[in-house]
Amino acid sequence: MQQVNVGIVGLGTVGLGTLTVLSENAEQIATKLGFSLRVKAVCSRTVETKPIPAGLGPVQKTNDWRAVVANPEVDVVVEVIGGTHVAREVVEAAIQAGKSVVTANKELMAECGADIWDRAIGQGVNLGMEASVAGGIPILAVLREGIAGDRVNSLFGILNGTCNYILTEIERHNTPFEMVLMEAQRLGYAEADPAMDVDGFDAASKLAILAALAFGERIMPSDIHTEGIRRVLPIDFQYAHQMEYTIRLIAAARLTPAGLILSVRPSLIANRTILAGVRGAYNAVWVRGQFGEDTFYYGRGAGSQPTGVAVVSDLMRVAREIRSGSPQRVSPFAHERLGEYQPISITKLKSRYYLRFRVEDRPGIIARLATVLADKGISIDAVLQLPEENWRDLPFVITTQPTLEESLRAALAEMSTHDYLIEAPFAMPMEARL
Amino acid sequence: MQQVNVGIVGLGTVGLGTLTVLSENAEQIATKLGFSLRVKAVCSRTVETKPIPAGLGPVQKTNDWRAVVANPEVDVVVEVIGGTHVAREVVEAAIQAGKSVVTANKELMAECGADIWDRAIGQGVNLGMEASVAGGIPILAVLREGIAGDRVNSLFGILNGTCNYILTEIERHNTPFEMVLMEAQRLGYAEADPAMDVDGFDAASKLAILAALAFGERIMPSDIHTEGIRRVLPIDFQYAHQMEYTIRLIAAARLTPAGLILSVRPSLIANRTILAGVRGAYNAVWVRGQFGEDTFYYGRGAGSQPTGVAVVSDLMRVAREIRSGSPQRVSPFAHERLGEYQPISITKLKSRYYLRFRVEDRPGIIARLATVLADKGISIDAVLQLPEENWRDLPFVITTQPTLEESLRAALAEMSTHDYLIEAPFAMPMEARL
Repeated sequence: MQQVNVGIVGLGTVGLGTLTVLSENAEQIATKLGFSLRVKAVCSRTVETKPIPAGLGPVQKTNDWRAVVANPEVDVVVEVIGGTHVAREVVEAAIQAGKSVVTANKELMAECGADIWDRAIGQGVNLGMEASVAGGIPILAVLREGIAGDRVNSLFGILNGTCNYILTEIERHNTPFEMVLMEAQRLGYAEADPAMDVDGFDAASKLAILAALAFGERIMPSDIHTEGIRRVLPIDFQYAHQMEYTIRLIAAARLTPAGLILSVRPSLIANRTILAGVRGAYNAVWVRGQFGEDTFYYGRGAGSQPTGVAVVSDLMRVAREIRSGSPQRVSPFAHERLGEYQPISITKLKSRYYLRFRVEDRPGIIARLATVLADKGISIDAVLQLPEENWRDLPFVITTQPTLEESLRAALAEMSTHDYLIEAPFAMPMEARL
Repeated sequence: MQQVNVGIVGLGTVGLGTLTVLSENAEQIATKLGFSLRVKAVCSRTVETKPIPAGLGPVQKTNDWRAVVANPEVDVVVEVIGGTHVAREVVEAAIQAGKSVVTANKELMAECGADIWDRAIGQGVNLGMEASVAGGIPILAVLREGIAGDRVNSLFGILNGTCNYILTEIERHNTPFEMVLMEAQRLGYAEADPAMDVDGFDAASKLAILAALAFGERIMPSDIHTEGIRRVLPIDFQYAHQMEYTIRLIAAARLTPAGLILSVRPSLIANRTILAGVRGAYNAVWVRGQFGEDTFYYGRGAGSQPTGVAVVSDLMRVAREIRSGSPQRVSPFAHERLGEYQPISITKLKSRYYLRFRVEDRPGIIARLATVLADKGISIDAVLQLPEENWRDLPFVITTQPTLEESLRAALAEMSTHDYLIEAPFAMPMEARL
């Protein structure tokens, strides 16, 4: 049977991981497919310095991506350069040229995925984007195919390995965020500019893609309430542990009677749940289905070879479809805007909350805070403070009964006018049932 | 676009769950596929007593499965009667008639999956068998597609919900196996004849299918060393907890330099691992890939609607392939017998072991046991005994350093000739690295 030929644009971490997997597993891939995948062209600005596995055979090496797209032998273009500007040009040019595309680009697919799918369907080619979310976890295949028959009610993820590494290190060593971040940067787990990761934007891009697939909606990162982990303190873990909880950066998409509520933010989750067992630079996704009930998926969120496996698995699927002449005919994004899944504001979320206060040492403060909460109709569940010897230096915590987030915000706004607060209260939702 | 028509043979738990999902999710399924799935025929020996959802529209009701296969409107036959005799006739007749098949039948696919796939490929039809393993977890889609680009090094699963429920109840309440089993039977979590579950055969069938897909081999349940959970005592959990372990029925397929080692047996796993967090009637699968590293999948192992989701998701995939005229052309079983993955005997496994002894109260017994172990080249890691007040009544435990199972068996055989043993020692592997 005739082979399917691949051109790879971008030879960074993911591109080289893809080449390794294609080269090392070539025989097994051919056995599974019944035909071979062959790399015919690779492109990088510094292609001459890149280690191209010899086992691939003769390969066109170029620093002009247009040469890959134009190469008449190339059937599928792999876009693994990242960013949204040139990457979009590459993807659109390949589709325009009637070639299928596999991409690992979460930002691009989060921002323009629905449009790119429409173009691909219009041109009768196929797209793969498994590697764009949660590297080694085949969560898009799961949503698109594995549990396609179910209706997703909610989806929760740990989608940023850097944040999960940092949070679990704070937890393990009782070390402040800034110090753990520096160590993570030294080890290569965090970028020199960590904002995309630690401020939650990376997780928000991934959640936008997952939620689009799960709910069949066009969802933009701007629909997602996004908070990072910079304010999480070691003492928050101490309070969380007192209640048998821990803290993770949770990306959540929940279908409520009013609409779809999307958020990325540090959250308390019960120690007993499987999600709490996700430590270090791993990712995980929890899906709650109407009929299939709870399913959970866990694996490497990034890394050269795990992401390479995602790219290659996508290539195999796309190659099968090329060989059988059957591109996907329905976009996995925004099948049809049904309306019932419209994103709505996080203020409509009902949750228990963890509120951490740092205040001046005066009598009557808990009474004043409790009064504000009561005025907004918020019931207190518990007031926690660590042992008295440390009391003057330490913040204390109030947890609430289930509360509408807009009521909480009104209470926090009113508290912010009180002069005894040393800093704005820090609020996190408490997810007991994950 | 023209619909794809379905005939369902078997209206037990899974058949009715499938009808519920098809009926309740009909609109969403059509949106995702771009065409409808329609149920045209259902078959059960007691079809007239079965609650067929009205939303399905007119449906042929019969108690002769041949009428479903022969119905010219039916494109895909769903076999959910279970067992291997009639089920095999149904599946083979449907394939012979040029119809695709979706089955939830683990025994049939474990025993005859490779042959059935060969027939299906010969007839140009497709097969789905997602529901045959780990009901709500789309693990076959993951292996077949999601991580197809990787090479699996090992695979570990909790594949029998009944056993997992029983073990976690023994753990939680310190109650003996027999009492928990009776309670499980009362609650409907265990069959009146529980042997298939508690003796490990059900898990072995599922492991045979998973391992065949993961390693591309023909693997028979008889290739799998299978032990059930009847000998696990509450005190085993107490000893396990002392070492920060717990006990689960672990189905394992490991690639070693000598070949593939397959087993289903109660095993100690570290409390810290995600697999230890799988409690109650859930299933989970842990896959260790050469390039993708560790991934983990969790969900309902059985149940009407979770298994119904698996059947319907398979139906959607098969229906897409029918519409595009592209059946699978390579069997997911036994792509090609490569030889390197030949199943070999469990005696070649190297593992740490937990050995529980019940002995007469005499001096010098530990010395004698230790001498036997030393003679076989087995190093002791620890000797554990619960607090002295209970000593006379309680078994004690020896754990070993990594040991070849054949050495362990030789030692146990020699010990069995010693007259101070009240019962044969009970051995479980200790899986620290799951």
